[in-house]
Amino acid sequence: MPKVFVTDTTLRDGSHSVGHKFDLDDIKEICKGLDEAKVDIIEVGHGDGLTGSTCNYGFSKYDDFEMLEAASSVIKNSKLATLLLPGIGTVEDLKKAKECGVEVVRIATHVTEADISQQHITEAKKMGFFVVGFLMMAHRANVDKVLEEAKKMESYGADVVYATDSAGAMLPNDVRNKIGTLVKELKIPIGFHSHDNLGLAIGNSIAAIEAGATYLDGSLGGLGAGAGNTPTEMLVAVLNRLKIEHNVDMFKTMDVSSKKLIPIVKKYGVNLNNLEDSMMLGYSGVYSSFMLHAKRAAARFNVDYRDIILELGRREAVGGQEDWIVEIAEQLENK
Amino acid sequence: MPKVFVTDTTLRDGSHSVGHKFDLDDIKEICKGLDEAKVDIIEVGHGDGLTGSTCNYGFSKYDDFEMLEAASSVIKNSKLATLLLPGIGTVEDLKKAKECGVEVVRIATHVTEADISQQHITEAKKMGFFVVGFLMMAHRANVDKVLEEAKKMESYGADVVYATDSAGAMLPNDVRNKIGTLVKELKIPIGFHSHDNLGLAIGNSIAAIEAGATYLDGSLGGLGAGAGNTPTEMLVAVLNRLKIEHNVDMFKTMDVSSKKLIPIVKKYGVNLNNLEDSMMLGYSGVYSSFMLHAKRAAARFNVDYRDIILELGRREAVGGQEDWIVEIAEQLENK
Repeated sequence: MPKVFVTDTTLRDGSHSVGHKFDLDDIKEICKGLDEAKVDIIEVGHGDGLTGSTCNYGFSKYDDFEMLEAASSVIKNSKLATLLLPGIGTVEDLKKAKECGVEVVRIATHVTEADISQQHITEAKKMGFFVVGFLMMAHRANVDKVLEEAKKMESYGADVVYATDSAGAMLPNDVRNKIGTLVKELKIPIGFHSHDNLGLAIGNSIAAIEAGATYLDGSLGGLGAGAGNTPTEMLVAVLNRLKIEHNVDMFKTMDVSSKKLIPIVKKYGVNLNNLEDSMMLGYSGVYSSFMLHAKRAAARFNVDYRDIILELGRREAVGGQEDWIVEIAEQLENK
Repeated sequence: MPKVFVTDTTLRDGSHSVGHKFDLDDIKEICKGLDEAKVDIIEVGHGDGLTGSTCNYGFSKYDDFEMLEAASSVIKNSKLATLLLPGIGTVEDLKKAKECGVEVVRIATHVTEADISQQHITEAKKMGFFVVGFLMMAHRANVDKVLEEAKKMESYGADVVYATDSAGAMLPNDVRNKIGTLVKELKIPIGFHSHDNLGLAIGNSIAAIEAGATYLDGSLGGLGAGAGNTPTEMLVAVLNRLKIEHNVDMFKTMDVSSKKLIPIVKKYGVNLNNLEDSMMLGYSGVYSSFMLHAKRAAARFNVDYRDIILELGRREAVGGQEDWIVEIAEQLENK
């Protein structure tokens, strides 16, 4: 299967969860972590897109352009992205975003209203942006309509078109059908953005990848309005398990999620679950009874407990083989 | 697709999350709710099965038989089940479980060790139990081996055989392959039990159903060790959306989860997320901006907010049509 590119939207879609109140220092911390993890694209800004900070959508703590400048100041590897909803953000805002160091702009419309993206996509292309067309509420139109609207965005010059499951309402078959059709009928790469309302953020992302999508969205720990998005670290784990080529370092996405994001959102009263331990078990296929012993041995030998779990998985450990743990920790220490 | 039967394991697999410390009153409350929701099978007992309450596996607050009697005393529609791991539980324990009103016994072994279930399955059948063979850690064997072991359980007299993803390690293709093969090669129905370590509890359950599985497990709110199980209420929602025949009332599973289980586990320090709101949005395909208004209107007209959301979904509401909400609430009130 072709290479997949990961966009992290913790600091845009995820900002709904903290009332768009991320501090500039929070933004820098998270961007630095995502950048070190080699996430391809990092989306930053108000949850409802450029200049969404209004009475209608809720005020963000900082101006979008301040947030984008903060992000840009620490990003070395990734591309900085922002979202724009025609009707809220303007072409003027795009120019200002460009000056802040934004390289990717995602232009979002309701799935039946691609027409209103023409001017913004055309102008964004002229300004040298990498332009992503974002068809929201993709469950609300049948496959023919989704195709028709996606083709419009392609004709305006979009570099990628996404089917966006804004309400977390799609089932895997619907995803396969729509993404598969777009992949077949369009010349540009196709993306998928998921929400977890029916517990299908990851399941649908896999369905999209199997149908040929090559741009996938996530947010750290799944941070996002309501049920949240696809957890970025889990998406990367699944890409690894599917042996699909990508650029992202799984352990580093876990680190920025558990060590940076979780303490940050706690300040805003959000208790984000730490997915790391249970993910490591599922990723390695190791039963949970090994976890506590692996962590103890890791502390004793000053190694990463995750490397112990990975090795237990490689050895196909089953219950009763906990004595392997110290042996593995010792070997890792002497490496 | 054929009818699906739902087993809820909140009070068995979920009991890992509360250190096997459910009170008898808790058990009665949950069983009553699940029974009213017409869940087919309710599994109760120590997380590691009959007489698992030991120094090795952690002591439960009550004896399995006390728990089973408490459950049995309130169940009217559902079948009461318990788990037995050969080597822990004995044939004597099965007799005692029978006297407590247990109708279904699930005999669990590691995926490569079905041999050790022969005596227990044979004896359980003689006692008149409905017997489920449970092949744990099904990711650890290839499809031929899983088939060989499942056939053993079938030959011993099992009424159903499950592939059990104990570590939440399986990907949808693996599920499709293994479940599809068992469905094709065995005469008895095939079941699937999921864990959410890689965010695939629901995605894999759908893959299993599409491959022909007709017995599916869940636990309320996904309560379970580590990443937990498939949330029962979400499984039912997905069955509805897939238009698959089943016996369970979705709203009632939500009620027992949010109104009974969440307060109960809070006593044990477990903060279980309430999935209801975000599930309702995904289920109906309605954007989250409608939720607050729907709840306000529901309170004003004394109707169930979920019925408002369902009707908004039927009308294919998109942002900007919030004025429909009061109209719908009024109509529901006058019904």
